[in-house]
Amino acid sequence: MGNYIYGRNNVFELLSEGNREVNKIILMKGMKENTKISQIIEMAKKRGIIFQFLPKEKFIQFKEFSHQGVIAYVSPVKYVDINDFLERKKQYKKVIITDGVEDPHNFGSIIRTAVCAGFDAVIFPSRRNATVNSTVEKSSAGAINHIDIIMVNSLSSIIDKLKDNDFWIIATDINAKDNYYNIDYCNMNFAIIMGSEKEGISSTILKKSDYIIKIPILNKFDSLNVANAASIIMYESVKQTVQKSGISV
Amino acid sequence: MGNYIYGRNNVFELLSEGNREVNKIILMKGMKENTKISQIIEMAKKRGIIFQFLPKEKFIQFKEFSHQGVIAYVSPVKYVDINDFLERKKQYKKVIITDGVEDPHNFGSIIRTAVCAGFDAVIFPSRRNATVNSTVEKSSAGAINHIDIIMVNSLSSIIDKLKDNDFWIIATDINAKDNYYNIDYCNMNFAIIMGSEKEGISSTILKKSDYIIKIPILNKFDSLNVANAASIIMYESVKQTVQKSGISV
Repeated sequence: MGNYIYGRNNVFELLSEGNREVNKIILMKGMKENTKISQIIEMAKKRGIIFQFLPKEKFIQFKEFSHQGVIAYVSPVKYVDINDFLERKKQYKKVIITDGVEDPHNFGSIIRTAVCAGFDAVIFPSRRNATVNSTVEKSSAGAINHIDIIMVNSLSSIIDKLKDNDFWIIATDINAKDNYYNIDYCNMNFAIIMGSEKEGISSTILKKSDYIIKIPILNKFDSLNVANAASIIMYESVKQTVQKSGISV
Repeated sequence: MGNYIYGRNNVFELLSEGNREVNKIILMKGMKENTKISQIIEMAKKRGIIFQFLPKEKFIQFKEFSHQGVIAYVSPVKYVDINDFLERKKQYKKVIITDGVEDPHNFGSIIRTAVCAGFDAVIFPSRRNATVNSTVEKSSAGAINHIDIIMVNSLSSIIDKLKDNDFWIIATDINAKDNYYNIDYCNMNFAIIMGSEKEGISSTILKKSDYIIKIPILNKFDSLNVANAASIIMYESVKQTVQKSGISV
């Protein structure tokens, strides 16, 4: 259970030391609050860590652990700051953004393809998306340690920041006119955004995008698995770059 | 538990009626055999259904069911016979073959992409590969009902048969020289073979293949998830076909 830190003192220490990444903190609704709890909440607010008050039932799965109504979800990797990522020098950077990929297997397998495809970072929002836990780590086959993982509070403002830094934003949408292979991925910084299988990408983010692309479906069938779709698009960019550069791979 | 039929009489009836696809039958080692058991074994042999004698411990997960030491694993779809598939008229047929894809999520998601990519059949061996069960059905998002699913006892002889029927055989191997996008998928019948993530495709089958291809890995990293890899290759064929035909999708 390397993904969780249980109990008031332990979570307090975790936040005070600040060495490990905290994905979120859950607190039991209606429990007696004391100074430790107030301090935990205060530190979480200051660091922008999500905290939620949840009913007792949600804690049943953790009943073997002495959690005292407080559990922190921690990440097996250190997240990279978006500014550090942007400052690092590289001719062209490639990024994959997930917006609502909730299944940890899919999220992990997207990270795995991103590493194989030579991408530089995976960006995901702290809400409505899988966070990096041990299931994601396993599904990524360890790839989480070979790429910059960037967790952000607001995807919308990060997209503005990427645009300010000469990134082209490529969103995927089943209603797009252009197919994914009709755009040129060479000689530019770009970020590909994958939405949730159910709801796609939010309209706010679609509006900010430079390109909206789709993967053609040749059958009367709903759609692709999001990790497979992400892999198809990432590898189209690999293919174009490799063919244009003439490097041997 | 729609995937299992429990008990001597029920399994006997299942085999006698012959309406449903049976993936395999397990029997408890050391149990008292009677006429029913002998008849079950005889019918299984006749129909080429795998049966295994397993120790008592393997039956613990089924302890709530009155299985009497006999359990049949059934398929949620009717498998298609390879000869029926070959006889059906179509200008060019596209097939995906899995050789050792044991994870049902991956297998299901390969079937899903195959449907989206307009493939005509998924072929898999009855041993060392996931069979079609409800996990596969779920991971395929229902796609198992939109494509011919062909279970075979020997992949090797099926590949010979496909070659006799003008199919080009495309195998994937990490040591291949050619990249997946360097071959022309248009104007031919073809079958793409995906191996297991750990062991790849057996050498017997590699030798029978017309093309051996790889997906380039741009990082010092192991390899792609097999469903993602299959999706990347299947969609390269879609792209080529769509671009060449000029049809609008």
